[in-house]
Amino acid sequence: MQAIKHKQTEGSTVSPLDHLADLLNTDMKATNAVILARMQSHIPLVSELAAYLIAAGGKRIRPLLTLAAAKACSDKAEATGLAAAVEFIHTATLLHDDVVDESAQRRGQASANMVFGNKASVLVGDFLFARAFELMVETDSIKILDILARASRIIAEGEVLQMSLTGNLEITLEQYAAIIEAKTAALFAAACESGALKAGADAATAENFRLYGHHLGMAFQMIDDLIDYTSDKKQMGKDAGDDFREGKLTLPVILALKKATPDETTFWARCMRDHNQTAADLETARTIIAKHNTVAEGRSVAQNHIDAARLALTKTKQTGITTTLDQLLDFVVSRNH
Amino acid sequence: MQAIKHKQTEGSTVSPLDHLADLLNTDMKATNAVILARMQSHIPLVSELAAYLIAAGGKRIRPLLTLAAAKACSDKAEATGLAAAVEFIHTATLLHDDVVDESAQRRGQASANMVFGNKASVLVGDFLFARAFELMVETDSIKILDILARASRIIAEGEVLQMSLTGNLEITLEQYAAIIEAKTAALFAAACESGALKAGADAATAENFRLYGHHLGMAFQMIDDLIDYTSDKKQMGKDAGDDFREGKLTLPVILALKKATPDETTFWARCMRDHNQTAADLETARTIIAKHNTVAEGRSVAQNHIDAARLALTKTKQTGITTTLDQLLDFVVSRNH
Repeated sequence: MQAIKHKQTEGSTVSPLDHLADLLNTDMKATNAVILARMQSHIPLVSELAAYLIAAGGKRIRPLLTLAAAKACSDKAEATGLAAAVEFIHTATLLHDDVVDESAQRRGQASANMVFGNKASVLVGDFLFARAFELMVETDSIKILDILARASRIIAEGEVLQMSLTGNLEITLEQYAAIIEAKTAALFAAACESGALKAGADAATAENFRLYGHHLGMAFQMIDDLIDYTSDKKQMGKDAGDDFREGKLTLPVILALKKATPDETTFWARCMRDHNQTAADLETARTIIAKHNTVAEGRSVAQNHIDAARLALTKTKQTGITTTLDQLLDFVVSRNH
Repeated sequence: MQAIKHKQTEGSTVSPLDHLADLLNTDMKATNAVILARMQSHIPLVSELAAYLIAAGGKRIRPLLTLAAAKACSDKAEATGLAAAVEFIHTATLLHDDVVDESAQRRGQASANMVFGNKASVLVGDFLFARAFELMVETDSIKILDILARASRIIAEGEVLQMSLTGNLEITLEQYAAIIEAKTAALFAAACESGALKAGADAATAENFRLYGHHLGMAFQMIDDLIDYTSDKKQMGKDAGDDFREGKLTLPVILALKKATPDETTFWARCMRDHNQTAADLETARTIIAKHNTVAEGRSVAQNHIDAARLALTKTKQTGITTTLDQLLDFVVSRNH
C-alpha cells in the first residue's frame, strides 16, 4: 500500500489510514488475495493489464472502508469478497476515466491506456466491472447488489455530467457538488453501507455508515481538488494541475471565479473554456487561487462534510475501528498532498 | 423493429423472427416501454445518447429470446424487466465496441461515438451496463444475476481475445470459435437461460434453453461473418466488409486461408496483418472466398450448431413458441443479408 504519511498531533507519523490498514491487516491481506485471484483471466492481455493496475497500487481506501464498516458492526464479519468488488468497480471507473480524459499519468505511472491502448483499457474496465458483479453475487445479498449497481450507475452519470460541464464557467457550487457526489461520494457511501450490511447491521446502522461514507467522500474529493492547485507532482504521485489542463472546473476555481477581477475572468475563460493554455498559466492559476484564499474557503466547505460524517459515526456502536474512522476524518481534511 | 424478411417454404413472407415478435407482441411492447423508461437519466446527455441508440433500433433479438424462453416455460411468465436488462447489456457492449473498433457505421446510422464522441459513448455504455444490473436486481434472483454477470465478463474477455488476435493469420478455427462463443453466444445463451429461470423452469429445462441460445448464437455470428463478405451495404444496413477493413479474421477468411495459394496468402497478409489495403482489395477478398466455396463450407459449420440447438429445443415442452424458435434456426442459417 502506498501510504499517505501525515504528522499527527500526538507526534506519531502513522496516518489513520495506515492505522486502519493495521487494524484490518488480516482482512486486507485476504482482500488483496481475492483481488489478485479474481483479476486473472484465461485471456493473457486481461490479466496483464489488470496486474499492471494492481502493481500501480493506490491507497485502497474504498475496500478498507468496506472492511472497516463490516468489522465495526461485527467482529465476525467476512467482507473480503465484497471489498475486492468495491475496488474492482473503482479500478474500472479509473480505466474508463483515463480513456476519456486522456490523463497522462495516474498514481505516478503512465496510465494504462497509454501503455496498452484505449481499446484494451475500455474492455478490461468492462471485465473488472463484470467481475465485481460476480463477486457481489457470491455475497448472496440482493440488497448489496442493489446498492452497488445503483452506485455504479450514478458514477457513470456523474462522469457524463462532469464532461458536459467541462469548460463551462457558469458552473455552480451545487452542480460541482452533484458531480463529486456521483463521481466519488456514491462509491464511498456504498462501500461503507454494503460493508455494514454484510456484517448483518440493522437498517439504521447501515444508514449511518452510508452517511459517514457519503460525507467522507465529499470531503475527500474536495480536498483532492484543492490539492490539485497546491501540491506538486512529486508529492502527489500524479500530475498536479490535471484538472486545470483538462478544463475541469473544481472547487478552488469556482470559488476564485466568484471573486474574480475582470482580468481574472478573462484568464479563466481562455484557459478553461477555450482550452488555450501556455506553460506558465498553471502557475498564474495557483497565484490567483492563493490570492483569494480559496483553499481555506474550500477546506471550510469540506469541513462541513467532515462534521456531518462525524455526527453519523457517533450514532453507531463505538469501537476501536470507529475511533480510527473518526481520526480519518481530520486526516482527510487536513492533508495537503 | 427492423424486420429481416425471409421467404418461408410455406410461401409466407413473414420471418420467424417477426412471427416470434407477433406471438410476444404484448410482452415486447412492455419491454420496449421498460427500455424507454429506464434509459432516462436526470443527466440530459445520457438520455439523449441512449435515445439515439434506441431510435437506431436493431432487431432486439436478445430480449425476444428472453421473452420467448420465459413464455415457452410458463404462460404466466413476466420477464420484461429482464429482457430490457439483456438489451441494455447488448447495447452497452455495442457502444464500447464502437469506441474500440472505430467502426464507421452500425445499424445503418453513423455510430454513436462518431456523433457524440468516444468519451460519452464509454460512459453511457457504463450507465446502461449498471442500469442492466439494477433491472436484474429487481428480478430478485441471485441465480439470474449470476448468469448475466458471468456472461458480461465473458463478453469483455472475448472482445479482448478478438483484439489480441486481430491481424494474426495463424488464428485457428478453435480460437475463432472461442471469440464468437464469448462475444455473441454467451449473451444469447444467458438471455435464454435466464428467461426460462424467470418463468420458474427446472434446472434441466433451463439448461436446454441455455444450449439452444448458445448454439443459435454461434450459428448467428458465423452467418453474420459470412455475410460480411457476400452482402452489400444496402442489404445489410451496415457496412459490408467491416471485418476485412478492421483486420478481423473471421470464418470465411480462416477457411480461405487453409486453401490459399502462395499469392493469396501474401494478399491476406498484406490486407489483414499489415493493414495495407486499397479500395479494390475487398472485391478481391470476395472473389477468393467465392472461388474456394468457403461460404458453403462455413454454412455447414453453422449448420452443426443449428442441429445442436434443435436437439436441445426438442427436449423442452413443445409449444407454439418452441415451434417458432425451431423455425428461427433454419431462418438464421439460410439468411444471406
